[in-house]
Amino acid sequence: MKFLKNCKNASKEIIKLIHSSNKSIFDKTQKGFGGDISMNIDLLAEQIFIKHFSKQGNIYSEECGLIDNKKEITFIIDPIDGSFNISNAFPYYGSSIAVKKNGKIIKSFIINLATGDYFYKSKKTRIENNIFYNKKVTSSINEMILFEKAYANIDICQKLANNNIKYRSPGALALSLALAHRCKAVIFKGDIREFDIAAGLHFNAHLNIKIKNDIILVAKRKKDFNKLSNILFKG
Amino acid sequence: MKFLKNCKNASKEIIKLIHSSNKSIFDKTQKGFGGDISMNIDLLAEQIFIKHFSKQGNIYSEECGLIDNKKEITFIIDPIDGSFNISNAFPYYGSSIAVKKNGKIIKSFIINLATGDYFYKSKKTRIENNIFYNKKVTSSINEMILFEKAYANIDICQKLANNNIKYRSPGALALSLALAHRCKAVIFKGDIREFDIAAGLHFNAHLNIKIKNDIILVAKRKKDFNKLSNILFKG
Repeated sequence: MKFLKNCKNASKEIIKLIHSSNKSIFDKTQKGFGGDISMNIDLLAEQIFIKHFSKQGNIYSEECGLIDNKKEITFIIDPIDGSFNISNAFPYYGSSIAVKKNGKIIKSFIINLATGDYFYKSKKTRIENNIFYNKKVTSSINEMILFEKAYANIDICQKLANNNIKYRSPGALALSLALAHRCKAVIFKGDIREFDIAAGLHFNAHLNIKIKNDIILVAKRKKDFNKLSNILFKG
Repeated sequence: MKFLKNCKNASKEIIKLIHSSNKSIFDKTQKGFGGDISMNIDLLAEQIFIKHFSKQGNIYSEECGLIDNKKEITFIIDPIDGSFNISNAFPYYGSSIAVKKNGKIIKSFIINLATGDYFYKSKKTRIENNIFYNKKVTSSINEMILFEKAYANIDICQKLANNNIKYRSPGALALSLALAHRCKAVIFKGDIREFDIAAGLHFNAHLNIKIKNDIILVAKRKKDFNKLSNILFKG
């Protein structure tokens, strides 16, 4: 459980940084490895992860790309998932870390940095809790669709509207994938990058998942999955 | 500050209830006064507010309508803002309470029940903080647009897409209105009900606000307001 402990410690440091109320953490810097313009908070959060994880493995992270520490395992990290949200004080943002060994994801950790809720999975355990208090898992009626990047995909908005399908579009992909088991479905269309999806899809690997071209569909129930597959991938 | 103290106490009770992990709190019951089907959590939260506020004023609330306690002031309450979110374990939901006297809103309180962040305004004070810890206010770059009920308004989605405008659609109107000063703009189109908007619009009454037909637009900067006005209300 050293990985989980490191994840929690890194998360707490990042939350402290966010609450430091230093406005310059949202200053834009250069373009990161993943292609987006990084903000200071992205780089600072990445440094915190590097500090906590470099001794145990290589780092493959959104801002810096690959840091080869000559280790067997690689940490695939999105230091801040939902950078646009965090810099607009919109409370839906997090971090995600997946552990890769021999080409396979073996552990994952996703945290909602606005609430402290986290999601952890290893070969033997699957935990949902909160880093600040011992949280009983909240129930869900599994009727929600989270559609990430709706604003950039008017074709899908139109298809969903034609089918009277209600959705939310909150803007942090890793977090939404980690919540997929509480939803009816999670939909995303856009650039698919390993940092954004590795941990979330590992945590919810038991659900129905389809990735085709630049669309991701995750649904708990087979009938929802089939219906949405038809809407998204056909016609 | 008795009002603020009561609001905080009621909020803590509701949060405790949500975390009780009793699945039946999301069972659907009858149609409430506001027209939506109520869930147990809506009714239970309303009961908590009635308990805390009935001695000081009349109650006008989404589920029960008006309770006339023969008082000078009326509490306008949305016991759970974002009922669909809360019942799907999606962490963006809250409560909102406005105080009305002689036909005018004189105080407001909105709380994000997922994070504990609250927003309070009276004639003399305007406070943003957290009910669980003393929070420094997080900065914002004011570039976010929150578009509530996007899924039901494909015409506006299309207009925003035509103008390359990015938005989020999180699903709790009072909360989004309370965050408007951290955003570029908040947009809503749908049934406009006093419980949903009274507190949020009072808290951010200093921003540019337009309500026409069934559309609400709130924007901090005049130029954003004018641009979005043109997109939403013309053509």
